[in-house]
Amino acid sequence: MLSKVGSFKFHIESYVCDFTEKATLPVICNFGLDAASIHAQQRGYGFEQISQKNMAWVLSRLSIEISEYPGYNQELIVETWVENVTRFFTQRCFRFLDPNDKVIGYARSIWAAIDLQTRRPVDIPERMPGLVDYIDADKICPIEVMAKIPPVEDVVPDMGYTVRYSDIDINKHINSVKYIEHVLNVFDLNSFKEKFIHRFDIVYLAEGIFGNKLKLYKHIDVDDTCIIDTKRENESICRCRISWKSI
Amino acid sequence: MLSKVGSFKFHIESYVCDFTEKATLPVICNFGLDAASIHAQQRGYGFEQISQKNMAWVLSRLSIEISEYPGYNQELIVETWVENVTRFFTQRCFRFLDPNDKVIGYARSIWAAIDLQTRRPVDIPERMPGLVDYIDADKICPIEVMAKIPPVEDVVPDMGYTVRYSDIDINKHINSVKYIEHVLNVFDLNSFKEKFIHRFDIVYLAEGIFGNKLKLYKHIDVDDTCIIDTKRENESICRCRISWKSI
Repeated sequence: MLSKVGSFKFHIESYVCDFTEKATLPVICNFGLDAASIHAQQRGYGFEQISQKNMAWVLSRLSIEISEYPGYNQELIVETWVENVTRFFTQRCFRFLDPNDKVIGYARSIWAAIDLQTRRPVDIPERMPGLVDYIDADKICPIEVMAKIPPVEDVVPDMGYTVRYSDIDINKHINSVKYIEHVLNVFDLNSFKEKFIHRFDIVYLAEGIFGNKLKLYKHIDVDDTCIIDTKRENESICRCRISWKSI
Repeated sequence: MLSKVGSFKFHIESYVCDFTEKATLPVICNFGLDAASIHAQQRGYGFEQISQKNMAWVLSRLSIEISEYPGYNQELIVETWVENVTRFFTQRCFRFLDPNDKVIGYARSIWAAIDLQTRRPVDIPERMPGLVDYIDADKICPIEVMAKIPPVEDVVPDMGYTVRYSDIDINKHINSVKYIEHVLNVFDLNSFKEKFIHRFDIVYLAEGIFGNKLKLYKHIDVDDTCIIDTKRENESICRCRISWKSI
């Protein structure tokens, strides 16, 4: 049996950096999802393997906390493991390290598995009985569980976009990380000069598809935190909470 | 002295694929630029090395021909070399191969080097005398030199976008590949189902910056070819020619 924790190394190329010469949040999310995908595949539960059994993984929630973003030309190590499996959800955690083994962040993701015909969630322990053997109960992901993100009402939309070719991924719907890119576009460059995103939570509520006209509603909380709701007419597609910290 | 031709391997992750399960054109461009950047750095002419001498590379033109896009989970090999150095420009070529050494495409890029203070082009052979030693006169890039791309006039704009955080790169202007992403968003998904982009030419004419409101003007030529002009008011920022081929 393979180790419970997988460890994957990524190199920070110039084209994954923003103007501060650091990797962006969407890029770190992509690296995490990539690590998750390889980890699952190596253990028999990858996208391609479960699609042969007529199932697909669906990302439901993601929380990420970063204390220091990796810079241009540096290496990022992503560790990932299964924290928990319940009837309809599995929690997968991440630890991010620099090449000197300094921990620079954590993340927790919550996944459902759907039946590709009915599009309904399947009973994970029943359909993937071996998955529980990979639960690592000893490895700690010390970040707080995501607090509920309330809908944003009564404000005018801050921005909007139409879903185009470059938003659509291999699963034929909007890529989960592309939503995050669009959400970050609400902020001007000064925000990223003076502060960095310390914690980001996102909950996926519906499937955005090609041609959808989406609007972003922003609600500023106290203490450098805001909620952004991505809506198709009155329906929330995804909702996120962003917490900034001064540099 | 290092070899004239550099060879770099890339893995096609799911998040770099479009809905056809192939790597996208912008991704292949990013891989090429990344290979170019490492190749130049290893030979002493990288972005960081020449910035210490107060210069920067500026991409002026790029032509790319692809006969077959690499698919999900496959490897792409990118070869790159210097084809030519003139007073104000250097030509860098690319050959793309699959893991069985089958050639699946070529590209040619034209670069100026600017002085970071004056923003004017520098005399390349004078300021970087060793660069000519890396010219590979024997390696052939068989694709045609870019034909002039005329401006697009007298048509209504097809689309537009405002330059946001995720468009801006490490050089603090719009990323050269992000322009290509926006240009491809003009097409609907059906175009990518029935056809693929066989040749793409782009000429960069001015620098787009944060907050710019850009408009895309499309002119359909004969034979599945079109020109798209990205303009800031009446000024062309970049102009491209796209040639499609049936699958």
